[in-house]
Amino acid sequence: MLASNLHCRMLPSAAALALTLLGPHALLAQEATEQLRVDGGRLYRGLLELGEIGREAGGGAMRMSFTPADMAARALVSRWLQAADLQISVDAAGNLIGRKLGANADLPPIVLGSHIDSVPQGGRFDGPLGSLAAIEVAQTLADRGLQLEHPLEVIIFSNEENGKTGSKALAGEVSAADLEREVVAGLSIAAGIELVGGEPEAIASLKREAGSIAAFLELHIEQGALLEAAGVPIGVVQGIVGIKRWRIEFTGFANHAGTTPMSQRQDALVAAAQFITAVHRIAKSMPGRQVATVGKIEAQPGAANVIPGRTELSLEIRDLEMAKIEAVYASVKAAGLLIAEESGTEFSAEEYYKSEAAPTDQEIQALISKAADDLGLRQQAMPSGAGHDAQSIAQFAPIGMIFVPSRAGISHSPEEYSSREQVTAGANVLLQTVLALDRR
Amino acid sequence: MLASNLHCRMLPSAAALALTLLGPHALLAQEATEQLRVDGGRLYRGLLELGEIGREAGGGAMRMSFTPADMAARALVSRWLQAADLQISVDAAGNLIGRKLGANADLPPIVLGSHIDSVPQGGRFDGPLGSLAAIEVAQTLADRGLQLEHPLEVIIFSNEENGKTGSKALAGEVSAADLEREVVAGLSIAAGIELVGGEPEAIASLKREAGSIAAFLELHIEQGALLEAAGVPIGVVQGIVGIKRWRIEFTGFANHAGTTPMSQRQDALVAAAQFITAVHRIAKSMPGRQVATVGKIEAQPGAANVIPGRTELSLEIRDLEMAKIEAVYASVKAAGLLIAEESGTEFSAEEYYKSEAAPTDQEIQALISKAADDLGLRQQAMPSGAGHDAQSIAQFAPIGMIFVPSRAGISHSPEEYSSREQVTAGANVLLQTVLALDRR
Repeated sequence: MLASNLHCRMLPSAAALALTLLGPHALLAQEATEQLRVDGGRLYRGLLELGEIGREAGGGAMRMSFTPADMAARALVSRWLQAADLQISVDAAGNLIGRKLGANADLPPIVLGSHIDSVPQGGRFDGPLGSLAAIEVAQTLADRGLQLEHPLEVIIFSNEENGKTGSKALAGEVSAADLEREVVAGLSIAAGIELVGGEPEAIASLKREAGSIAAFLELHIEQGALLEAAGVPIGVVQGIVGIKRWRIEFTGFANHAGTTPMSQRQDALVAAAQFITAVHRIAKSMPGRQVATVGKIEAQPGAANVIPGRTELSLEIRDLEMAKIEAVYASVKAAGLLIAEESGTEFSAEEYYKSEAAPTDQEIQALISKAADDLGLRQQAMPSGAGHDAQSIAQFAPIGMIFVPSRAGISHSPEEYSSREQVTAGANVLLQTVLALDRR
Repeated sequence: MLASNLHCRMLPSAAALALTLLGPHALLAQEATEQLRVDGGRLYRGLLELGEIGREAGGGAMRMSFTPADMAARALVSRWLQAADLQISVDAAGNLIGRKLGANADLPPIVLGSHIDSVPQGGRFDGPLGSLAAIEVAQTLADRGLQLEHPLEVIIFSNEENGKTGSKALAGEVSAADLEREVVAGLSIAAGIELVGGEPEAIASLKREAGSIAAFLELHIEQGALLEAAGVPIGVVQGIVGIKRWRIEFTGFANHAGTTPMSQRQDALVAAAQFITAVHRIAKSMPGRQVATVGKIEAQPGAANVIPGRTELSLEIRDLEMAKIEAVYASVKAAGLLIAEESGTEFSAEEYYKSEAAPTDQEIQALISKAADDLGLRQQAMPSGAGHDAQSIAQFAPIGMIFVPSRAGISHSPEEYSSREQVTAGANVLLQTVLALDRR
């Protein structure tokens, strides 16, 4: 391989000098970057070590943002960022950032990242994989004394699991009300941000302009079972689905369960049950990958011997296209109105949450796909059904996401699992995609 | 009408003497008892006065047993019992009892009664009607100086709304665990019974033998809308329905609502919804008056973005025949098992409550029917879908129940309403049935 194929330059650092002095390692800097591989063992050990922080009875970890466990995880990851020759800082939103200069000072940075906070009883991979793989990419480059043309940024986003505060801040999407919201740690998000060294009052200044980032990449576990079922190690994410949520209510008439004949009931729970069945049937029967879910339900008054007079439920619909979400909702709503008419109840629906679909960049998809090909890894294109930090970054920059399989599709659980080989394959695709982007 | 038709004797009391001295009233004792009528105005005023005790914001009354409001109601009703020439006592279960000797000391008593405790936001009639109408019957007799052949007992049963403690005690159905249960008043039922002058440790001694009561009669509002819909003033109750309740559980698999395709879900709430729909359809389509209700539901984990992995619901089935309850349950259970199989979930059912159906005595039904006829009141035979104190009494004595219409079938609500005319008609049927029983 000719030196002209190398799009990295020697880093004039003590680490590089040490490598030069260490004999065989000095040759590494001259390898073709296509041959570069991450240290999968180091990465996996890091995931296991981080997974111990916040460990609960039950086997999962609880590192909700700004809790002592989250703070301890940030301290550990800070050391790893520094070890990877990144200069660390905390921005106004409490994002933990590691930066390395590029050889070309005029280029915008290539940014990698994810989060390290976790839900209660969370697993070891959702967030930590993308975070530690980003650091592993930087560490792999540093180990070889390589410098990219572009600046490299690794961002550990703050408070992903409870509002995606850190990534939303870069898109200017955090409101004053968001900052005042109290989180599990027992304080407001603003107070939490201050606790980790951010400046909540300056959060608006973080908003980045279009073109300010060359590309953003996030490696993540699939949190679904498509890759596992297909026996495919790499998912090339086509986009992050849009989400809409509604509060649905059926109002009937609460009455005595013993004295009200079946034919005279206005049972709000029976109506809701027919609606839930319809939601499932409609979402399942329409062509496409849309999903619709009723996850919450409350029947009132809620006694075994009283016919429910009121039922509240949640409705969530996701798809890569917002128009498809609207089409599913139109069918579901028509079913709800019909059920209400036939059961003597009233149907109402109030939208309370909307998250726009975020398509990934086509060119980056192609680079990820080629990187997987070059590594001999089978791959498939797929949507991300879950939301991710990349979603807000897509508002001002081209994004790409790489998925690796999750065992049985399980996440947000101590049973969340991806193997060392799967994790390593994903991190190598991330590394090679970074190098390809840098070469563009 | 000849004196030989009179089955009452002059009571040699001061009240009777006073009546004799009062001129026209003295003649009343010689009227045929068939002409006797209660004082509907007095009865209705009593209901309104009692309904003020425990009045809450919202318009209803809260007199859960052993609360200060329940105690105040007991004190007021004690005065009315005494005014009706009844000798009052409190038994070991805290039942408030008024007794009058019969002319024939060998006969067992005719017993009338109901309860005066009420649920939160309770109405003026559920319980108080049967209680005050019983007192009104005694008062009507006392006003005329009449004495029955049988002893007369009026029982105000303790703690009906939260366990039917008082009436169950007479059937020996109160367990030690029942007594230890804490009630809304903030103490155990045992402590509540002590508070009202009972002896919880002696409760077992209350169990009455078969034959110890000539008959038990309870007047009650229908708590349903059949009489109102039919425009019929009197319901002749065929029996109190049996009740069985089960805890139903569907267990599926909790999973991410965004990443789990519709076809791969094991959604415990969708399964539960299909089950609720099946319960309603089965109970509605079988011939008969059975009712089946799902009143409670809980989906876990209960988040808008998580497919429910577990759903718990209540199932209640009621009918006059226990065998019919079992037949409905068999169909419902078969449906549940099929739904579980088709949805990849597990179905389980645990019976947690059973109340035996209590048929009313055929001869007493006929006497009630004749009394209504003689009063020129239309009537219809019907089951009682709700439980009543009479239910436990049926374990050892012939019982009869008389229903009057409830406006819109509403009970356990401030909107509970029966008119003065409806209440008066019911009390007159009660009075005439007592007199007919006494003549047997």
